[in-house]
Amino acid sequence: MQLFYNPNIDATVSQFVFDKIESKHVVKVLRKKEGDTLHITNGKGHLFTCQIIIASDKKCVASIIASKEMPPHRDYVLHVAIAPTKNNDRMEWFLEKATEIGIDEITPIICDNSERRVVKIERFQKILQSAMKQSLQFQLPKLNDPMLLSDFMMQKLKGSTYIAHCEDGEKKGIKDLIGSKQNVTILIGPEGDFSSKEITTALEKGYIPISLGETRLRTETAGIVAVQNIAFINQ
Amino acid sequence: MQLFYNPNIDATVSQFVFDKIESKHVVKVLRKKEGDTLHITNGKGHLFTCQIIIASDKKCVASIIASKEMPPHRDYVLHVAIAPTKNNDRMEWFLEKATEIGIDEITPIICDNSERRVVKIERFQKILQSAMKQSLQFQLPKLNDPMLLSDFMMQKLKGSTYIAHCEDGEKKGIKDLIGSKQNVTILIGPEGDFSSKEITTALEKGYIPISLGETRLRTETAGIVAVQNIAFINQ
Repeated sequence: MQLFYNPNIDATVSQFVFDKIESKHVVKVLRKKEGDTLHITNGKGHLFTCQIIIASDKKCVASIIASKEMPPHRDYVLHVAIAPTKNNDRMEWFLEKATEIGIDEITPIICDNSERRVVKIERFQKILQSAMKQSLQFQLPKLNDPMLLSDFMMQKLKGSTYIAHCEDGEKKGIKDLIGSKQNVTILIGPEGDFSSKEITTALEKGYIPISLGETRLRTETAGIVAVQNIAFINQ
Repeated sequence: MQLFYNPNIDATVSQFVFDKIESKHVVKVLRKKEGDTLHITNGKGHLFTCQIIIASDKKCVASIIASKEMPPHRDYVLHVAIAPTKNNDRMEWFLEKATEIGIDEITPIICDNSERRVVKIERFQKILQSAMKQSLQFQLPKLNDPMLLSDFMMQKLKGSTYIAHCEDGEKKGIKDLIGSKQNVTILIGPEGDFSSKEITTALEKGYIPISLGETRLRTETAGIVAVQNIAFINQ
């Protein structure tokens, strides 16, 4: 199955028009014709089965012939707040892989040691959409605007909160700390790790230090390892 | 700690010369001087502490002042045989992340549906070396030459063997099948999955089908998920 994405469709819509880029993709690249069936999600848990009415490569029109609310893949909520990597490709890999494996919310955090303080949220959104479609999921992860870690930690979050810092000290593994069906927020720091001040504040705010394994991991690898460990616990 | 790699050092060597590229890196980029200390691994489980004797950017010479056999990070052996992805970056990303997380042996396999049948093994080697150094490990994963899956499956392998195919049928998760300290080989197929014929042969050869989770994963993501699941079981 090939999955399309259109955030503007819901159960009240009976037909809709693809924008110019998608029309070209559907009609020119995929060579879809009038009467052909397409599967579309709105990224909010719905799958729509549609039929092409007008196969125009500038303005392709489809009517909705069935809609279905898809059960969620997960019975937990995972939020990862991660410092964007200096090399932007690495952050984009994280976004793609985390979406494929399963994540609900992502916040880029700007930390004391962050070398990258500006990100292209629109490009990040496209990566999430593409990974959602590719992995046949119907719920688009929520991507928040970047924020300072100090501001992030001021928020009252649901569920348990963890910090994966690299400083010495007693840290348990995810296996020992997190059970299934638990709502979790995990902080992943930048290349130079969280500052001591940030770690102290996090501990004061109730964040629990966790270890992600025996080896030293890059930021984006730590992110993926955290996401996959939570998925594994919930399998 | 910054770790260097030189496969030619062993306990019998008392001093050695860096090649031209590494000499330039050590002296020009890192601005190391005579008397400075370096940490080097041979990728065979040893850590050597060395002192620079001649800080020449063309021919840097160091003497070994201490050597230590490092205990292995893992008490299991993991071999992943994976079809190189059409987009080479994705395969390289797998190699880097698998090394960071922990893997012992990698075989690129050419399958019926493989779109990529040629790989640059030397470049792959460099990626493994770099990820080993980055993640402060002392054992370089063994990278085999690419081989046909049909030939690969003719081999008698140690430990249990698994195939992560996408066809329907009863498949258990890694959690239900694999315990800690188990030696494991896992087959990961190309973008178009293994062919039915390949799956039949694998089952005849005793490969056990496994599922890697609820979502449809790209080849390289499946590879990482497998590596991380095995690491997690062994934590």
